[in-house]
Amino acid sequence: MEVKVVRRVLDANETMAQENRQMFAEKGVFVFNLMSSPGSGKTTMLVETLKRLGSEIPTAVIVGDICTTNDADRLAQTGVEVVQINTDQFGGDCHLGAHVIRRACQDINLDAVDLLIVENVGNLVCPAEFDMGEDRRGVVLSVTEGEDKPLKYPLMFRVCDMAVLSKIDLLPYLDYDKDLAVKNINTVNPNIPVFCLSTRTGEGFEAWMEWLKNQVAAKNKS
Amino acid sequence: MEVKVVRRVLDANETMAQENRQMFAEKGVFVFNLMSSPGSGKTTMLVETLKRLGSEIPTAVIVGDICTTNDADRLAQTGVEVVQINTDQFGGDCHLGAHVIRRACQDINLDAVDLLIVENVGNLVCPAEFDMGEDRRGVVLSVTEGEDKPLKYPLMFRVCDMAVLSKIDLLPYLDYDKDLAVKNINTVNPNIPVFCLSTRTGEGFEAWMEWLKNQVAAKNKS
Repeated sequence: MEVKVVRRVLDANETMAQENRQMFAEKGVFVFNLMSSPGSGKTTMLVETLKRLGSEIPTAVIVGDICTTNDADRLAQTGVEVVQINTDQFGGDCHLGAHVIRRACQDINLDAVDLLIVENVGNLVCPAEFDMGEDRRGVVLSVTEGEDKPLKYPLMFRVCDMAVLSKIDLLPYLDYDKDLAVKNINTVNPNIPVFCLSTRTGEGFEAWMEWLKNQVAAKNKS
Repeated sequence: MEVKVVRRVLDANETMAQENRQMFAEKGVFVFNLMSSPGSGKTTMLVETLKRLGSEIPTAVIVGDICTTNDADRLAQTGVEVVQINTDQFGGDCHLGAHVIRRACQDINLDAVDLLIVENVGNLVCPAEFDMGEDRRGVVLSVTEGEDKPLKYPLMFRVCDMAVLSKIDLLPYLDYDKDLAVKNINTVNPNIPVFCLSTRTGEGFEAWMEWLKNQVAAKNKS
């Protein structure tokens, strides 16, 4: 019974995600869903990404949190349009669903943007199950979280099209095997690129920015 | 409709949690539920805790993960009885529920233990909603996760009886305001103690071990 209802919720989400996908295709907006545990550095990475993008690609951001507008406030300082979703208005949801994205898009002029970045609720489990109509998904794993997380939370790494190992400036102070972490990611999902980043030093940002720009360009061409 | 069913699931969990609580009371077992994001250092902290406990308090551990037995393998090396729950057999649940604990307890001789530690699935959101019949709850937040997490994930900090700030040996390499983190925890839950720990250096372990031992002793006396 319980399982049947969960199935129905996921089916309803899937239907709305397809409608979102159609809407984003019509508007020519590339949508990127960024997920991770709490505190892996998603917001900091996005702030730096938006600064580097400048006015090159018109961008908007949807930020999901259960409570607070902390992340939106930080992102808005870059001058980019930011819509904050607090899921405590949606039952305290531990993820963003397609209906929440639909609602947030009412506050964004989609005709004016080419790139929509969604910063999901900090959770390495549930957001992986909910399609929102995005084009690509990414997962951020900080090097302080241990090498084994891809094996312990495989669904997240399986549904993503890229992964980031963040906070690599901390590597000298950790007992952390970066190569093992990359290997574990590619054990779960052999084909995805893994970008090793430090927002503090800027290391690795060029490769990640190039990937992102290529994705946006490919959508605009198609 | 959806909400009603979620309500029913939570009610069923609550009923079974009360039955578990009764069972633990009869057996004189103090049950401690430890929660956190993935990678905050729960397992490492528990391994060190079990080593320090030695044979002083007969202990067993239930470890929840979606996949793998990595954590159980590490904990079992301390010689303590460990039961691993893989929630992929329970629909890939993002938390441990009362029914899962009931099942795990069939594999533990509760008459022989005074302390049962439950290491929950790594998730700062969902586990907070599920009572398992435990006596006390704790949350671990590593200092690499940012100071604002208690404000962004308030339910977790609200339902807990203690909090740990872990990995404090990394403080010299981070822009992290430890006092602000403690303040944010106590904004959400004014009365809980916050233990600042480093498993690497052992700093802070005495205070945490004393708290734990006092809790077990109080239950045995009552």
